[in-house]
Amino acid sequence: MRIGIIGAGGMAAYHAKGFSLAGGAEVVGIADPNVQRSEAFAAMHGIAATYRTMKEMKTQHPDLDAVSIVTPNKFHAPLTIEALQMGLHVYCEKPPARNASEMQAMYDAAKRSGKLLMFGFNNRLRPESKAMASYIRQGEVGTINSAQATWIRRAGIPGFGGWFTDKELSGGGPVIDLLHMIDLALYFMGGYPEPKCVLASTFHDFMGNASFKGPWGGIADGKGKMDVETACHAMVTFKSGQCLTIRNSWAEMNEREVVSVTFQGTKAGGKVERLFGIDGGVDETSVDSAVLYTEEYGRQVNRNIITEKMRRWSNFQCDEFCAMPGGWH
Amino acid sequence: MRIGIIGAGGMAAYHAKGFSLAGGAEVVGIADPNVQRSEAFAAMHGIAATYRTMKEMKTQHPDLDAVSIVTPNKFHAPLTIEALQMGLHVYCEKPPARNASEMQAMYDAAKRSGKLLMFGFNNRLRPESKAMASYIRQGEVGTINSAQATWIRRAGIPGFGGWFTDKELSGGGPVIDLLHMIDLALYFMGGYPEPKCVLASTFHDFMGNASFKGPWGGIADGKGKMDVETACHAMVTFKSGQCLTIRNSWAEMNEREVVSVTFQGTKAGGKVERLFGIDGGVDETSVDSAVLYTEEYGRQVNRNIITEKMRRWSNFQCDEFCAMPGGWH
Amino acid sequence: MRIGIIGAGGMAAYHAKGFSLAGGAEVVGIADPNVQRSEAFAAMHGIAATYRTMKEMKTQHPDLDAVSIVTPNKFHAPLTIEALQMGLHVYCEKPPARNASEMQAMYDAAKRSGKLLMFGFNNRLRPESKAMASYIRQGEVGTINSAQATWIRRAGIPGFGGWFTDKELSGGGPVIDLLHMIDLALYFMGGYPEPKCVLASTFHDFMGNASFKGPWGGIADGKGKMDVETACHAMVTFKSGQCLTIRNSWAEMNEREVVSVTFQGTKAGGKVERLFGIDGGVDETSVDSAVLYTEEYGRQVNRNIITEKMRRWSNFQCDEFCAMPGGWH
Amino acid sequence: MRIGIIGAGGMAAYHAKGFSLAGGAEVVGIADPNVQRSEAFAAMHGIAATYRTMKEMKTQHPDLDAVSIVTPNKFHAPLTIEALQMGLHVYCEKPPARNASEMQAMYDAAKRSGKLLMFGFNNRLRPESKAMASYIRQGEVGTINSAQATWIRRAGIPGFGGWFTDKELSGGGPVIDLLHMIDLALYFMGGYPEPKCVLASTFHDFMGNASFKGPWGGIADGKGKMDVETACHAMVTFKSGQCLTIRNSWAEMNEREVVSVTFQGTKAGGKVERLFGIDGGVDETSVDSAVLYTEEYGRQVNRNIITEKMRRWSNFQCDEFCAMPGGWH
Amino acid sequence: MRIGIIGAGGMAAYHAKGFSLAGGAEVVGIADPNVQRSEAFAAMHGIAATYRTMKEMKTQHPDLDAVSIVTPNKFHAPLTIEALQMGLHVYCEKPPARNASEMQAMYDAAKRSGKLLMFGFNNRLRPESKAMASYIRQGEVGTINSAQATWIRRAGIPGFGGWFTDKELSGGGPVIDLLHMIDLALYFMGGYPEPKCVLASTFHDFMGNASFKGPWGGIADGKGKMDVETACHAMVTFKSGQCLTIRNSWAEMNEREVVSVTFQGTKAGGKVERLFGIDGGVDETSVDSAVLYTEEYGRQVNRNIITEKMRRWSNFQCDEFCAMPGGWH
Amino acid sequence: MRIGIIGAGGMAAYHAKGFSLAGGAEVVGIADPNVQRSEAFAAMHGIAATYRTMKEMKTQHPDLDAVSIVTPNKFHAPLTIEALQMGLHVYCEKPPARNASEMQAMYDAAKRSGKLLMFGFNNRLRPESKAMASYIRQGEVGTINSAQATWIRRAGIPGFGGWFTDKELSGGGPVIDLLHMIDLALYFMGGYPEPKCVLASTFHDFMGNASFKGPWGGIADGKGKMDVETACHAMVTFKSGQCLTIRNSWAEMNEREVVSVTFQGTKAGGKVERLFGIDGGVDETSVDSAVLYTEEYGRQVNRNIITEKMRRWSNFQCDEFCAMPGGWH
Repeated sequence: MRIGIIGAGGMAAYHAKGFSLAGGAEVVGIADPNVQRSEAFAAMHGIAATYRTMKEMKTQHPDLDAVSIVTPNKFHAPLTIEALQMGLHVYCEKPPARNASEMQAMYDAAKRSGKLLMFGFNNRLRPESKAMASYIRQGEVGTINSAQATWIRRAGIPGFGGWFTDKELSGGGPVIDLLHMIDLALYFMGGYPEPKCVLASTFHDFMGNASFKGPWGGIADGKGKMDVETACHAMVTFKSGQCLTIRNSWAEMNEREVVSVTFQGTKAGGKVERLFGIDGGVDETSVDSAVLYTEEYGRQVNRNIITEKMRRWSNFQCDEFCAMPGGWH
Repeated sequence: MRIGIIGAGGMAAYHAKGFSLAGGAEVVGIADPNVQRSEAFAAMHGIAATYRTMKEMKTQHPDLDAVSIVTPNKFHAPLTIEALQMGLHVYCEKPPARNASEMQAMYDAAKRSGKLLMFGFNNRLRPESKAMASYIRQGEVGTINSAQATWIRRAGIPGFGGWFTDKELSGGGPVIDLLHMIDLALYFMGGYPEPKCVLASTFHDFMGNASFKGPWGGIADGKGKMDVETACHAMVTFKSGQCLTIRNSWAEMNEREVVSVTFQGTKAGGKVERLFGIDGGVDETSVDSAVLYTEEYGRQVNRNIITEKMRRWSNFQCDEFCAMPGGWH
Repeated sequence: MRIGIIGAGGMAAYHAKGFSLAGGAEVVGIADPNVQRSEAFAAMHGIAATYRTMKEMKTQHPDLDAVSIVTPNKFHAPLTIEALQMGLHVYCEKPPARNASEMQAMYDAAKRSGKLLMFGFNNRLRPESKAMASYIRQGEVGTINSAQATWIRRAGIPGFGGWFTDKELSGGGPVIDLLHMIDLALYFMGGYPEPKCVLASTFHDFMGNASFKGPWGGIADGKGKMDVETACHAMVTFKSGQCLTIRNSWAEMNEREVVSVTFQGTKAGGKVERLFGIDGGVDETSVDSAVLYTEEYGRQVNRNIITEKMRRWSNFQCDEFCAMPGGWH
Repeated sequence: MRIGIIGAGGMAAYHAKGFSLAGGAEVVGIADPNVQRSEAFAAMHGIAATYRTMKEMKTQHPDLDAVSIVTPNKFHAPLTIEALQMGLHVYCEKPPARNASEMQAMYDAAKRSGKLLMFGFNNRLRPESKAMASYIRQGEVGTINSAQATWIRRAGIPGFGGWFTDKELSGGGPVIDLLHMIDLALYFMGGYPEPKCVLASTFHDFMGNASFKGPWGGIADGKGKMDVETACHAMVTFKSGQCLTIRNSWAEMNEREVVSVTFQGTKAGGKVERLFGIDGGVDETSVDSAVLYTEEYGRQVNRNIITEKMRRWSNFQCDEFCAMPGGWH
Repeated sequence: MRIGIIGAGGMAAYHAKGFSLAGGAEVVGIADPNVQRSEAFAAMHGIAATYRTMKEMKTQHPDLDAVSIVTPNKFHAPLTIEALQMGLHVYCEKPPARNASEMQAMYDAAKRSGKLLMFGFNNRLRPESKAMASYIRQGEVGTINSAQATWIRRAGIPGFGGWFTDKELSGGGPVIDLLHMIDLALYFMGGYPEPKCVLASTFHDFMGNASFKGPWGGIADGKGKMDVETACHAMVTFKSGQCLTIRNSWAEMNEREVVSVTFQGTKAGGKVERLFGIDGGVDETSVDSAVLYTEEYGRQVNRNIITEKMRRWSNFQCDEFCAMPGGWH
Repeated sequence: MRIGIIGAGGMAAYHAKGFSLAGGAEVVGIADPNVQRSEAFAAMHGIAATYRTMKEMKTQHPDLDAVSIVTPNKFHAPLTIEALQMGLHVYCEKPPARNASEMQAMYDAAKRSGKLLMFGFNNRLRPESKAMASYIRQGEVGTINSAQATWIRRAGIPGFGGWFTDKELSGGGPVIDLLHMIDLALYFMGGYPEPKCVLASTFHDFMGNASFKGPWGGIADGKGKMDVETACHAMVTFKSGQCLTIRNSWAEMNEREVVSVTFQGTKAGGKVERLFGIDGGVDETSVDSAVLYTEEYGRQVNRNIITEKMRRWSNFQCDEFCAMPGGWH
């Protein structure tokens, strides 16, 4: 399978490494309007060709099968739609888009094209998530009544004035950036149940305060915009009777960075969790767990599931399909 | 100060012990329609007189100053109003009432009588709560943006078919029974801010399942009603811009019993927490903590506050006034 | 049910307390040739009558239903047989007897009498044992291939020269005294499978060395015999293909006192374990656990079972029959 | 000293690294019938020459002093005997052979040749083992009455159908593969005491079940044989009165991978232990300990010995002779 | 042996309990100028007679053998000397006296009288201290070069204005009150070596600050004096070449209450330590340890000594003589 | 800024790496009388030129701005003075000199030259030290009454007979080598208060004993001198009324390597600490902490300060001036 990478930013390295490890995938080129950056990237990752645009890449590689879109969020929708229209499968980094209408357009384009559109929800492929999904699929959890999706940081704003904090470019702050656990909870709850009511509050404290900056994202030149939230609390009820509580923050006076989905089912509850040693820390500093809470023969039982350590690029060794509901091709 | 206890059930023992330890308080009698029970109670606690009704007690003790009402929830409002009308101060066990209209009538009666009406929110007097309140009062936390009030049990339904599970008598399940943390969060957030929007879901699983019964509350004869919720998830937004997330359960597939308020302020966050060794366990098995999350000189800091161990009857050695907002007399 | 206790030694107190808590049991008397001891015991436990012999007790109480035999091991067989012949049910302290031929005689007597003969294997009724038995009974463990029965102490010889260390009176040392885990393992393995081959080694070190004495059992006058083993290691294979490894010690250079059965089944393994804080410690110092080792959906899983704390007298609140194989009545 | 390596499989890399670190050793060539494999190995490890056979190597290097034999177990005996007959010292990977008669032939050949025959029992050279051996040698342990040799894995079968699971090639399963602790226990017990009686049970569950495969050893093509045990339990008594209990498994429903020798002596007990973080894990994930259990001035004492971290290739920096009893040259 | 207790304050209860448990001791009376207090004490502890003075007691009990002096420090010297002159053995609570000249007079009186004078250095009899003393006595530690004696509290001033804080009555603050570890270190160092040089600093912060009051010692009426130190740091060198560092505090910004002696010898080092759960806490909340640091066969080793839990009154079950150097009778 | 490194020993690598990471610094050459060593160093670190002497370097680089002196201690004073006289700024490794008179001469030379003289007290720049200094500077600690400076090793002598153990070359043992915590304490106490009295003891045990050698420093040829102390205990009082207790050791029977400053102030106490996993271990094995002990609203509070991990070369990214008191230029 011949693949092109669109965008030579920080996350692209994980895509390049992932494709190199996945059997059957070949990266034929990297496209980025910043030629210097794409050439440096190509050199470092042993990629043969660089292009300014996806279109140029497709022209040079008529047999291109798919693209991996790794750009600021603003470009997800137009590039995805363009790629699908060119007959390419698309692997698009998360978040899918900046808002629902962009998402709808992408969805429609995928439907029309008959091509596969998949998003970078790599947290579904964490060993803990996959383990938990097995129990849910087999009916051991029953119906999930309630769930809590949490990705909170204490001091982890990704720079001040870069594209992350510019709503026009990003679509929003931590809810957009750290939406993995919301996705995972909805996936666990049975294929994205239909919402009935949403209640949410956002806060904007600590933006621009250097004590709350995370380890990645440059300080930027301070001239950029900082018009996104730093924290959000929300609750969603669903037509199915289920409910979901959401917490996302880049900066909030919390104990530590917590990444987790917990849920309470009619037959069992559970938790998949990653506790970072330090905010925004690398995988090696984290403590990961997957536990199922059950009742067996009249006693309460905690099932600790032994899993391997997650690695960031492992999502490219996919063994299951991760698309949004509906199938999309 | 001359005090009468109304109701000779399980919690009354804490009231009797508390009054005996509080200087200046004298328990003059116990009133309960069940004569056998009130006499046994009087004998065990060294109380001189027993009565069938509060009225009878007041007649015999014209100099009675106050009553402590320790009955099923249904009787809180009528007994409180009757006592206030007789010119007595009232210490009423939590919850205040079964619903808002009962509460309003109690409030009005207190206002009219000029007497003090106080509720058994003893968790405000936990050492951890009092410590945290000091910081909040001194402005070290800033404005609390968001808070989480949690009292969840995994397997702690107080019997099947007694008054706890009968909505007519109790007014509701764990939200009514374990409302301490909701009270504490609202107290911390600055005197019960005015709600703007409430979203809530309740669940009824595990009711009647013996594996989910807690250590207190008899099984009852099974003929009583079991028409209250076993778990609730809710979110409240306030006109002040603040928000509160609530979890209460008697029975839910959770990890363990957790009793806590956490909050995120504009200057500091914090947590007061009690983790029980076993669900519904006695105080001695719990791990209690009070921590403040601050930023100092550009670094994140956790302040661990050293407190003594809470004892249940300590709320009677009150050193601060615990009434609902408005003052009430 | 009318019960008599035979023997007023240390363990009899647990029997008296247990019967007082078990509904429907009434202790009518205590028999012991040492009158002073039986009278002190009766006074302390509120027992109405004392006798020198079981026979005397039966004569005075023709309606006696059962006896609890709590004597040095030498008397288990003759007293049990005598009681069965008098038409009494028998609850006999462990070990059943000093050797296999005594045991056979007791078994035969029980068969002939049609009365119930039960032994004090209270470790089957530990919360952890009962929990584990549920899984085994339900087939979740499959066939137990191999098991390890362990009750080892580091420094816990029950005195020097009393009846515990006199083979004529006791029948043996720790294998006889601490045989609970052997019983529990055989119970778990499916009703006492038939042995095929036994290999064992015993050791006699540290006998008489005060550094290795446990907290109970007096030093005695040093004139008594000390002719039993202090440690034993053994392996048993069974005709079923199963095998069992055994460790028992009163005194051996081990890390600490360990009381456990571990097993490896064709579908799951497991462990019930009690680790004492100090050798021969009281129940309150122990750490107890029950864990099942399973494989679920391709992953290894540890199921931690939450149980209440065991109390020594709880074996008298029996809810299951604990007799040796064959049924016996 | 001029050395040749025979066999270019996975373990050979440790030999090459070890010899490169040991002063005075020079690796002159690698012999393997698979030319491609030996050439790749030589290139990676900077070895000058490759050969198809040991004989060819010896012919080219008449001054060869010794060989290191790193082949499937079937070839240990014939290659060792051939080497000894050519006048070479031999370092042979463990296990010595597939069975006792092969072993006897190797022993006889060594005796006849006057050359040194040594086996890869590198666990004798773990820092913990060496520390414990010091105490034993100095008489601080007294006589070891009993010992337990344990190397058990929960899910660690080295592939299905390769040479490890083929009895013809390997001689057996985990008892053969993980025999290090048996060797270490016998070494501690005083130079391989003479057995008196052996009782053993083997089991074959989980063979071919992918959930029980370890991290090394390929899946193989499934066409190979899988006729070895997956678990073994055994007990050996010795003419000296000592006894040894053995557990070995590749796949068994155990808690985790445990590698240890514990023993109980007449003066002290002890334990050397390696607990792996995950089954078959690398050294870095393990927790290693060496503890001596003693009695001093009437009190029980645990001596925790501080050791460095073991590294796999350290066995080539030998400072003591590790041969089987008898000396062998 | 007939004993009288002099002084009916708080510590006297431990003396009464201790004597009742020690075989052969009989408490014949209690003397205290405060009659009400002595009568209450006698009633509670079952003591037959009360007196106003020691002299009165001796007159009534000509066969009195010994007295236990449990008074404010000011009275230790005069009462001890008076008792010795009356021909009584004396057990005097710590500290021996307020200063060296009082001590000298007591020492001289003991010498002259030929009677035994012993002080309440009960920390020498802690199980940890006795264990460590065994090693020192046997020469396993070699010469102690240096030691650290530490009893520091963070918030433990024994009231404000009682006799503890009045220098005239007490002789000093924490150095006088918490001198146990200084005594223990000097005892370990080989019988009170002769000082060569002393350097010390005292501090007086937090006196009168309620946040730094401990759990015992009343607040007093505030009219008493508060002229003693709250913390002291000191170093002593000895003519033997040894040195000792001392820390004592009632109130100092320390982490927690620590009670320990650590030392570094020419052959081994060691530590006996008690860490209190809360400042001034009861014995049950403490974590106690005794560890020896040795070098064995070229490796560093920590010997953890297993001891029973200390109980405060156990010093009356003395099995060794605890007098100051010189023997004293 | 153009910098030369003087001395190509082990620590020079940290200097080279540090300068390469600090913006604006350029290393123009390395000077060492051992040409082979300086050329190897230059090759490894990409340094263009090597010289035999500092003078030679200065001649070749007339525009040299500063030198970094990384030599045995004996040469610190003469090289520093020579460099200052040549008009160079000097960064001199710790310790400043072998004794006070050398130090005075260096100080005078710096004053005269008007150039900056700074020492390698990199522990002031540990994240924990910088955090603690912020609180002290802001007055949150009040006056530090007392402090404890500790750098003790159990088995960490840097070789036998090299320059570290030769007093002529080094000036002394661990007090000289591990003086960082003394410097840090004096810095915290308010700019090197003026001493009033010093009391100290040194010990020389374990010198030459291989069991007490640390991981760095060669064994040397054993011909060199070993005339420095292995351990020191000291106390200093200051004219300000403050006091400091000091412990330094390379070899002493301690529990483990501890590196810390603790202090007790009139408003708060604190601790910065590094506990090494193994003596002389690398940074990665250490556990670092910074805690402030305060009293807030009547309760004792521990403030745990979250800091990043220290890296050894980070002292070259200086953001504050680290010179001795007086400013020095």
